Amino acid sequence: MAEITIQTNRSQEILDITRQVNAALPTTLSTGVCHLFCPHTTAGITVNENADPDVKHDLLVKLDQLVPTREDFYRHAEGNSAAHLKASMLGFSLALPVRDGRLDLGTWQGVYFCEFDGPRRRHLKIFWQAADS
Amino acid sequence: MAEITIQTNRSQEILDITRQVNAALPTTLSTGVCHLFCPHTTAGITVNENADPDVKHDLLVKLDQLVPTREDFYRHAEGNSAAHLKASMLGFSLALPVRDGRLDLGTWQGVYFCEFDGPRRRHLKIFWQAADS
Amino acid sequence: MAEITIQTNRSQEILDITRQVNAALPTTLSTGVCHLFCPHTTAGITVNENADPDVKHDLLVKLDQLVPTREDFYRHAEGNSAAHLKASMLGFSLALPVRDGRLDLGTWQGVYFCEFDGPRRRHLKIFWQAADS
Repeated sequence: MAEITIQTNRSQEILDITRQVNAALPTTLSTGVCHLFCPHTTAGITVNENADPDVKHDLLVKLDQLVPTREDFYRHAEGNSAAHLKASMLGFSLALPVRDGRLDLGTWQGVYFCEFDGPRRRHLKIFWQAADS
Repeated sequence: MAEITIQTNRSQEILDITRQVNAALPTTLSTGVCHLFCPHTTAGITVNENADPDVKHDLLVKLDQLVPTREDFYRHAEGNSAAHLKASMLGFSLALPVRDGRLDLGTWQGVYFCEFDGPRRRHLKIFWQAADS
Repeated sequence: MAEITIQTNRSQEILDITRQVNAALPTTLSTGVCHLFCPHTTAGITVNENADPDVKHDLLVKLDQLVPTREDFYRHAEGNSAAHLKASMLGFSLALPVRDGRLDLGTWQGVYFCEFDGPRRRHLKIFWQAADS
């Protein structure tokens, strides 16, 4: 099991962490599954397009329109209920295929850490299992 | 593999099941991955804050505002299309890290069973794998 | 590891792929976990009701109302930002229990491939691990 640290820089931000996840995989793992787990409640993880940064912009703006930071009915005193819901909508765990010791993603895919209540110093748990032969 | 039963008490409800999941893990499992699978179509599972119950309230109210129970265009005769979509938005499977025989969650995290069409008697499948040494 | 091909026929479409996933499982796997991974960025995977096709209609129409194809603020030149977000909302990876060599789904569950930017020729990665005895 490994853990990487991710320093976010904005209140809401989508960061490509594909390289860091690949670097955390042990050299002994050739084929198998890589599990990612986000141990926070106001940040999530997802997979999405690694090419055009405008995709990240559009995802964040649309999510913020759907789940705005302020709503009259929110009771949670910290004021970050929207961040909690966005994180749950994208998810906290991902299971990714590994081949030849690296994430076997689609051509246009990157792994994204999604900050919804930053900036903060965040962590991501990475663990893996070799494939059955 | 284990299965736990969850009795929900309201039409929409978020229940902290962290303790039950921990109790279902075998004493032989020290480090590894715990898989949760929700075998229903109108309830989901997620991770979120375990401290302030207002977070659960805010998640449910906001989700209900986004995906209301009634829409003119819904065709499904059972009238619970909203519950189906909410469950898909939160998800049906979670892979959680296990360390020292317990879920290795973040400090503020709990595991939540999310009922969207209750009250019902629900089930959750729990299975696991030891980490590669 | 296996890969199946899915030809979608519409711009937005939910396809039941339960049978294809079961057929891809090796005869040597009795009990364990089946991982599904969608290697695209404008299509996702989920579990939902396998009985009434109206559920699929309602999910697609409601998702499209929440995340419409066109928004003034979208910057992504390809014009499919909505498809990217819908895919992230439903998710790209699923871990499903396997028993007696088949997916151990709930009575009313099917596995769905969710196309949000079709029609396209899509792929799905399927990999598995036997349960710890």
